[in-house]
Amino acid sequence: MSKNEKISNSVIRRLPRYYRFLGELLNEGITKISSRELAERMSVTASQIRQDLNCFGGFGQQGYGYNVSELRGEIGAILGVNEDHAAILIGAGNLGRALAVHLDYGRYGCRLCGIFDSNENLKGEILGGVKVSPMSELESFCIKNKPIIAMLCIPKDAAPEICEKLTELGVKAFWNFSHYDIPQKNLPGVTVENVHLGDSLMYLCYGINDKRASDEKPEN
Amino acid sequence: MSKNEKISNSVIRRLPRYYRFLGELLNEGITKISSRELAERMSVTASQIRQDLNCFGGFGQQGYGYNVSELRGEIGAILGVNEDHAAILIGAGNLGRALAVHLDYGRYGCRLCGIFDSNENLKGEILGGVKVSPMSELESFCIKNKPIIAMLCIPKDAAPEICEKLTELGVKAFWNFSHYDIPQKNLPGVTVENVHLGDSLMYLCYGINDKRASDEKPEN
Repeated sequence: MSKNEKISNSVIRRLPRYYRFLGELLNEGITKISSRELAERMSVTASQIRQDLNCFGGFGQQGYGYNVSELRGEIGAILGVNEDHAAILIGAGNLGRALAVHLDYGRYGCRLCGIFDSNENLKGEILGGVKVSPMSELESFCIKNKPIIAMLCIPKDAAPEICEKLTELGVKAFWNFSHYDIPQKNLPGVTVENVHLGDSLMYLCYGINDKRASDEKPEN
Repeated sequence: MSKNEKISNSVIRRLPRYYRFLGELLNEGITKISSRELAERMSVTASQIRQDLNCFGGFGQQGYGYNVSELRGEIGAILGVNEDHAAILIGAGNLGRALAVHLDYGRYGCRLCGIFDSNENLKGEILGGVKVSPMSELESFCIKNKPIIAMLCIPKDAAPEICEKLTELGVKAFWNFSHYDIPQKNLPGVTVENVHLGDSLMYLCYGINDKRASDEKPEN
């Protein structure tokens, strides 16, 4: 991993998208591609692509383009798609159960191995091939199975306590869908991805209002 | 909206988070706050907060801090939280139904008014207070109700065609959860927010691997 020690966060953020598009190219039987063609497909500039991918030592060859399979493999390795991180889901409400069944975790280097919910009525239900267990079994499960990732689909008020408890139990990463921003700074050595779907929807709505405002002022 | 004509996308992206944190302050009865205190809560720098909020003409007063309610109101107005955008959901599978019931659309300036699914067995089911209709009724519904936002929770292969059809029917914004990147450039005047949950999970996994790599090399 020495090549990417100084890679900016924003470049890392873009890697999953590269990985996806390169996978699509492979599916289409395309084995090499120029930065210009890749840029066109991804609606970014060729210069951004070259800059981003040079960060990792530069996979491309001048005048030849990128070897799609090789580049995808290298990005996948950086992202850790071949890992097998044990993940648990806390909260099997609407969003939790959607996440349990919607995602093919193996593709991302994870494996969903436990689901927990405080609602005892859900006990024993199978979601995405995994049984829902009561919260009372969380601690013993973690000690035995050592999950690295916890996905939180729980109410805001419950999040801080669960987060602290799971950190003590060895969880190293939170994929957090609760309406609570897990403060990264309080958890050294722990990776946090706070996903606020509402923020994304607000950003979309901003776009509508902004475009409408531009349309109403054609003179600008 | 004239103040924010030149605001960068990254600042706009951060506004929903400000809006959320300011709402929490109000709930706690806090009516004014300095950039330093807000920075501490939000785990960002005070200088970033001042820069971000100065873009909008500067709400703060030197030595006094921000008026929380006023600032939240201004940001909310920029984001359009008082709008009433009609939204439809296409695809009432696991993720679609979670989105239908999980979010309080009114808080974001939207209103879910229609849900459509190609599975005829779902016809008539109520999700989030809205009835699921068959796809055959989509066109007449759009002509009558003029939805502005379409949330897509459909398979990748179905997305391009639906997207084109809905654009023709007057949809101005796509909140897209399908595994297809709607290309913004092909849709002038339309706002697109492609949400790839898998990308977010990959970024989280990168963080785990990256932290582990640092731990294994304490000499760096």
